Amino acid sequence: MSRSSIKAFAPATVANVSCGFDVLGFAVENPGDEVEIELTTKPGIEITSILGDKGKLPTDPKLNSASVSIQSYFDYIGYNDGIKMILNKKMPISSGMGSSAASSVAGVFAINEILNNPLNKKDLLKFALQGEKIACGSAHADNAAASLLGGFILVRSYDPLDIVSLEYPKDLIVIVIHPQLKIDTKAARKLISSNIKLNSAVSQLGNIAGLISGLSQKDYNLISRSLIDVIAEPKRSKLITGYQEIKKTAIDFGAIGCGISGSGPSIYALSTNLKKAENIAFEMKNKFKSFDIDSNYYVSKINDTGAKIINK
Amino acid sequence: MSRSSIKAFAPATVANVSCGFDVLGFAVENPGDEVEIELTTKPGIEITSILGDKGKLPTDPKLNSASVSIQSYFDYIGYNDGIKMILNKKMPISSGMGSSAASSVAGVFAINEILNNPLNKKDLLKFALQGEKIACGSAHADNAAASLLGGFILVRSYDPLDIVSLEYPKDLIVIVIHPQLKIDTKAARKLISSNIKLNSAVSQLGNIAGLISGLSQKDYNLISRSLIDVIAEPKRSKLITGYQEIKKTAIDFGAIGCGISGSGPSIYALSTNLKKAENIAFEMKNKFKSFDIDSNYYVSKINDTGAKIINK
Repeated sequence: MSRSSIKAFAPATVANVSCGFDVLGFAVENPGDEVEIELTTKPGIEITSILGDKGKLPTDPKLNSASVSIQSYFDYIGYNDGIKMILNKKMPISSGMGSSAASSVAGVFAINEILNNPLNKKDLLKFALQGEKIACGSAHADNAAASLLGGFILVRSYDPLDIVSLEYPKDLIVIVIHPQLKIDTKAARKLISSNIKLNSAVSQLGNIAGLISGLSQKDYNLISRSLIDVIAEPKRSKLITGYQEIKKTAIDFGAIGCGISGSGPSIYALSTNLKKAENIAFEMKNKFKSFDIDSNYYVSKINDTGAKIINK
Repeated sequence: MSRSSIKAFAPATVANVSCGFDVLGFAVENPGDEVEIELTTKPGIEITSILGDKGKLPTDPKLNSASVSIQSYFDYIGYNDGIKMILNKKMPISSGMGSSAASSVAGVFAINEILNNPLNKKDLLKFALQGEKIACGSAHADNAAASLLGGFILVRSYDPLDIVSLEYPKDLIVIVIHPQLKIDTKAARKLISSNIKLNSAVSQLGNIAGLISGLSQKDYNLISRSLIDVIAEPKRSKLITGYQEIKKTAIDFGAIGCGISGSGPSIYALSTNLKKAENIAFEMKNKFKSFDIDSNYYVSKINDTGAKIINK
């Protein structure tokens, strides 16, 4: 590509984080998606190629989450020229790791950068959410905000959109394991009924408050006690073969918490020690294997950077 | 009374704190209740007198929240002698300020102290909750834990009971205003249906997480944005004449947040400045007056001590 091209990376993310249904998310170091953009004078967005998606993603710019996000950005800033775009999916699709959010975020981050940052990073979120809406049917911000900004984020409010960067212990290690199971985000969402018991809400309120306090005070025991989900996990875990056993394995081998990543099938676990985390991940993979399920795992610190340019 | 007598004070409390339905509470400096205990050799609890209750509270030790709490403590430690007890209600009953919790806490704190503290302070909570159960029909711990321990507390879990002391800015000033309106706690609780919309739960999760983060990071703007209650306030506020106008007055005069204290009718507001807080309280009282409702207000820092002995 010419000098007028740029490549951005946006990381995978763990949303919900047990007690934080639809409001909490954090980014991991890897995997993630790359979007390469070249400015052209021909109006419109042309998706030149999509790599790593095994042909699963739409190349129609009106349907692809990255291009939809970029188009909504163009509409906002009034950009009338065009781009060519390459999307390199370096993470699994429909994995519960925020795949569509990573593509959307990489897209809007790249275009904003190549146009010399007319908007600041935080303001890009609303455009990335347009891509989320196309891919998932609803614009949930927990994945996209974490992928864009990095760190551990809270969606305090959707209307108005209010994203808060939370304090968290920098030595926290994340394991995300992705089993070869397919769960559709929309189907997983339908499992959660639109009404819940007040008792469940109170329980979840206590736990999310405990988690935020624990993260802030670096109280690992409190974090561990608080990583309980009574809203989504009881229903969605049934879609993940061996879920209870995998979770038990993670805890038995020293994870301070474990839960479904987003709407699954990926599972996240937290540890305070890299070596221990590698071992937990290995044992979780072994446990999946005992159910005849292949899996890939990723172990890293929480990614404090979020979207970034990886070449200019 | 002889040397074998003791007097304890336990403070009034604000429970729920807008987004923390059934899980958050904090203590104020005043008002509060006093319980005076004298050890006797005649088995059983004798309530010698109750002051300041206008004859409203039961003197039957099986029905009074302070004596019920003390009896459950006796049952636990195996104490077989008796006591004489004076309960001095120095705060309004059925006010939404944790009146029964203050009596229960003062009672168990006094008896534990006069018996040379066989149990530590935190362990007294479960006995105080027995008094809450008698008075309110259910053992909600947010008032009692805050009254006992002081500070800003979280009931992370009811089963097992898990109380977390939260970080909060020490310069936070609390206004509590008690209008001459009667609300029955049990009736106020019945207004809240046992099922809530998932959307409401998500909204409340976002706000409680924002509040805990704001308290911890001393971010007053975030605290202010987070003090929203979509579960109880929309229903319970209808029982408080002029509620919306009083709340608007508090905010207009600079309160960073305002909501129902417990199940009402008292209303709390937060400020970062004592002089401003006094003015907010004065204007809230004036606004109640415009509805022909008398009220009393209390302005103080958050009480970081909780229950204490006031003479030996």
